[in-house]
Amino acid sequence: MSQADVASTRPLPPGISEAGFASAIDAFTAALGAEKVLTSDEDLREFRDPFQHAAWDEYTASAVVMPTSVDEIQAVLRVANERGVPLWTHGTGRNNGYGGPAPRVRGSVILSLRNMNRVLEINEELGYAVVEPGVRWFDLYEAIKAGGHRLMLSIADLGWGSVVGNTLDHGATYMPYGVDMGMQCGMEVVLADGTVMRTGMGAMPGNKSWHVYKRGLGPTPDQLFMQSNYGIVTKMGVWLMPYPEVYMPLWLRVWKDDDFAPLLDTLRTLMLDGTIRMVPQILNTVLLGSVFSSRSQWWQEDGPIPDSLIDRMARELEIGRWCMRFALYGDEAVVDHRFAKIKAAFERIDGAEVWGSKCAPEDIPNLEHPAERIQGGVPNLEWNNMTGWYGGEEGGHIGFSPVAPLTGRDGLAVRDLLRGMLHDAGLDYMAGVIPINARSFIHVAMVIFDTKNEAQARSAYAVTKRLVQEAAKQGYGEYRAHLDFMDLAADQYSFNDHAYRRFTETIKDALDPNGILSPGKQGIWPKAMRNGA
Amino acid sequence: MSQADVASTRPLPPGISEAGFASAIDAFTAALGAEKVLTSDEDLREFRDPFQHAAWDEYTASAVVMPTSVDEIQAVLRVANERGVPLWTHGTGRNNGYGGPAPRVRGSVILSLRNMNRVLEINEELGYAVVEPGVRWFDLYEAIKAGGHRLMLSIADLGWGSVVGNTLDHGATYMPYGVDMGMQCGMEVVLADGTVMRTGMGAMPGNKSWHVYKRGLGPTPDQLFMQSNYGIVTKMGVWLMPYPEVYMPLWLRVWKDDDFAPLLDTLRTLMLDGTIRMVPQILNTVLLGSVFSSRSQWWQEDGPIPDSLIDRMARELEIGRWCMRFALYGDEAVVDHRFAKIKAAFERIDGAEVWGSKCAPEDIPNLEHPAERIQGGVPNLEWNNMTGWYGGEEGGHIGFSPVAPLTGRDGLAVRDLLRGMLHDAGLDYMAGVIPINARSFIHVAMVIFDTKNEAQARSAYAVTKRLVQEAAKQGYGEYRAHLDFMDLAADQYSFNDHAYRRFTETIKDALDPNGILSPGKQGIWPKAMRNGA
Repeated sequence: MSQADVASTRPLPPGISEAGFASAIDAFTAALGAEKVLTSDEDLREFRDPFQHAAWDEYTASAVVMPTSVDEIQAVLRVANERGVPLWTHGTGRNNGYGGPAPRVRGSVILSLRNMNRVLEINEELGYAVVEPGVRWFDLYEAIKAGGHRLMLSIADLGWGSVVGNTLDHGATYMPYGVDMGMQCGMEVVLADGTVMRTGMGAMPGNKSWHVYKRGLGPTPDQLFMQSNYGIVTKMGVWLMPYPEVYMPLWLRVWKDDDFAPLLDTLRTLMLDGTIRMVPQILNTVLLGSVFSSRSQWWQEDGPIPDSLIDRMARELEIGRWCMRFALYGDEAVVDHRFAKIKAAFERIDGAEVWGSKCAPEDIPNLEHPAERIQGGVPNLEWNNMTGWYGGEEGGHIGFSPVAPLTGRDGLAVRDLLRGMLHDAGLDYMAGVIPINARSFIHVAMVIFDTKNEAQARSAYAVTKRLVQEAAKQGYGEYRAHLDFMDLAADQYSFNDHAYRRFTETIKDALDPNGILSPGKQGIWPKAMRNGA
Repeated sequence: MSQADVASTRPLPPGISEAGFASAIDAFTAALGAEKVLTSDEDLREFRDPFQHAAWDEYTASAVVMPTSVDEIQAVLRVANERGVPLWTHGTGRNNGYGGPAPRVRGSVILSLRNMNRVLEINEELGYAVVEPGVRWFDLYEAIKAGGHRLMLSIADLGWGSVVGNTLDHGATYMPYGVDMGMQCGMEVVLADGTVMRTGMGAMPGNKSWHVYKRGLGPTPDQLFMQSNYGIVTKMGVWLMPYPEVYMPLWLRVWKDDDFAPLLDTLRTLMLDGTIRMVPQILNTVLLGSVFSSRSQWWQEDGPIPDSLIDRMARELEIGRWCMRFALYGDEAVVDHRFAKIKAAFERIDGAEVWGSKCAPEDIPNLEHPAERIQGGVPNLEWNNMTGWYGGEEGGHIGFSPVAPLTGRDGLAVRDLLRGMLHDAGLDYMAGVIPINARSFIHVAMVIFDTKNEAQARSAYAVTKRLVQEAAKQGYGEYRAHLDFMDLAADQYSFNDHAYRRFTETIKDALDPNGILSPGKQGIWPKAMRNGA
């Protein structure tokens, strides 16, 4: 890709002149109405990567269009196809840590679906909802509550995100249906040529099983529309869990950094045998401490916090060197049995403690700890405090997120690699480990920096890029990549001369020959932009 | 497609001359060796649809090639691409009820992977195996046992099937990982042009999470290779479950045909709340009775067995009007709690009974009832007796298998539709209902007939085709279709002028421009064979 033209204040889509762009905006405006086409600097500011340094503009959009219906999306696609304007789609654009709402290609027009935000159906008997892509966790939660449904929604950490958007980016949620990201069922997709397709049983008109059976007759394309640029998802089924008799949020803390290994090995055993069936989150002292304190309380120097101070944080905040949030859901007798088993298993680790309290589902909104509400499906924004670590509202983070087998060996190997390289770069090692099933975990290293400190920001980007390559050498690949190193992360998936990339390109060219949908997303480029174009 | 040429004894691939075919066989032989290329009538007989009437030859192959390595598959693909020879791929070809090993296009060369049958890895710590496509349930079970692993394999009803083949055809298995057909993780696929691709984390050389994390970076193509003709799967990861403390096979019987409705509603509640977490099978009297008796014991007339006789079968075989096989797996305390809860819930249905006995995993091979071994992961062939219903070894069946929401309303609607039309055609209504998750069931109507009785066989095919259309009108679509009505079944998935079919064709043309891989599979035809070609 060409370098950003820093001289221009208003980026243009690649290959489009000022006049051509003005004419495209006129066409978008004619199709949607002026209030759904944003072009002012002030409007566009809201659609920047919120954590990018103010002086950088490589991922800046030229305009934002905000359709509110499938018809309007089709109209946008017609204009984009005719004029070769790249569209970068998001649900709510809260993909923070990976680029937020910003497009991979400078000058793209953002296709924001924030205002296509209806909850279309909630089915209590069969336990599912159908939502449009602008529906946030907050919105769906409120709709379930307003309908009086005794159903729980597996949510992400931050309630402002899009249910569809999080799903399409392989984002984690934490209740039982979060295991293997298993809660999506049935989609409607608008393809690049404007064709509206329904997946699974939805491909049959009037079929009753669209949102209850995950496949159809023939190949199942749903996961092809995740982490890709092959279509625009306009409806999606989401499974909801009936209220259990008891919800029991649990905590585990251990006091030595190397306890991470027996913690993971014990957890694998308890997840494999079904004792724990949800998605835990294991945080190290510095990451969990960042939710409840700021760095300057502990350490005012440059460079990573010393280990002795981390021990102090662990003790004073009472969070241990690793702290796991997790939960049980079910009949009280089963929960009691499992809690006793879990406690006995983990407390074989010297000094480890497991605790928690049972709660009726109705009482979850009143729980004090935000994590206990998150795991109980009650959305909030308190987990967002992490990014304030380096002081105030200007904190940012990028996520570096490799996947590894759920073993103590792999846990220590990933920790050592990440900690070592981050410390060498002068940054803290802030680890959020998400065992997404009984066999693997996603290790989200929150690379947190002060966005006003350009040197620190550059250092964070640079070390993360080195991490992508070093982790791959050791057999660990990213589950999701930041805009700035999507290509680099995809490069690591190079088996057989990049057979997978060639496959994704073949599909891309077949489905989107003009290359208008989110070029560059997860390293998938349309033909005209490949080969150094 | 053109009609079968009944005059020819040796079918040829479409558009290929006798000489061209002879030359292709020479080329296959040069690539694989003569012992891996079968052309004799005797050899080919084994690769017919075992349930097709002897006089029919519409789905007859011209030859069989049996490569045993990826290199040999690539060599076969080179020959097929150069000469335009269609290849119909199977693992073991036991897709009985849907066409067995036979190809959709008469004269296709069967690509049989029966001899590519190595168990490549069994990982006890992380609970998975990696297998080639010729590995049968029997083989993998034996390999696990031989290795002394305390791991259980979720298996299909008949042990001779291919683990990979069953997975690729969306086949059911019954243990907890059978829910939503969730046990597959990571694939190696040979594409039509010979490219070897690995999916998920396998796309990164040396990645450690290929068979423990279900996705990769970018779109996940695994389900695109199921029920399709887009590639040849050569390796697949399969999750294995650690031995539970207790296995408890369970039975439920009810005595009135309409009890099917409260049975399904109660089951949904117990599956939604996680009390039952596996894939039950609910059989009506006639189907379950066919495993343990033959029709002539009960009824010697033409036409369907009268209801009063079904009541007699229900009593004398002690199987009820509907009988559900299911099971619990887990800690004994949890199993005990769940059994009591399940028993109380179902026995609210008048006359319903639930019973079962706990068993250590080591003792499952000694269980007398084949279903209790199947649900415990010990493969056998006893369930195959069903097809002998009309007498002797010449019994056949075709499966008609719509999907419906797991509610009593939908259960009765599907039953009434199928029973009515089958009875009108003079056939028995033999129902196997498979709740594949907490929200939906697959209703396999086993349309069983005497393969020597051509009139009965024709009637079975004819009524099944009418059922495909009538079920679709009521909102129920097939999950899998027999060769003879794959096109008809796919036709029903017509939302937005067949948008899904057009999508599958776009992908087909991009991945397999010469159209050599399994043309017609699930209604997906390559370009040259579409539009009445």
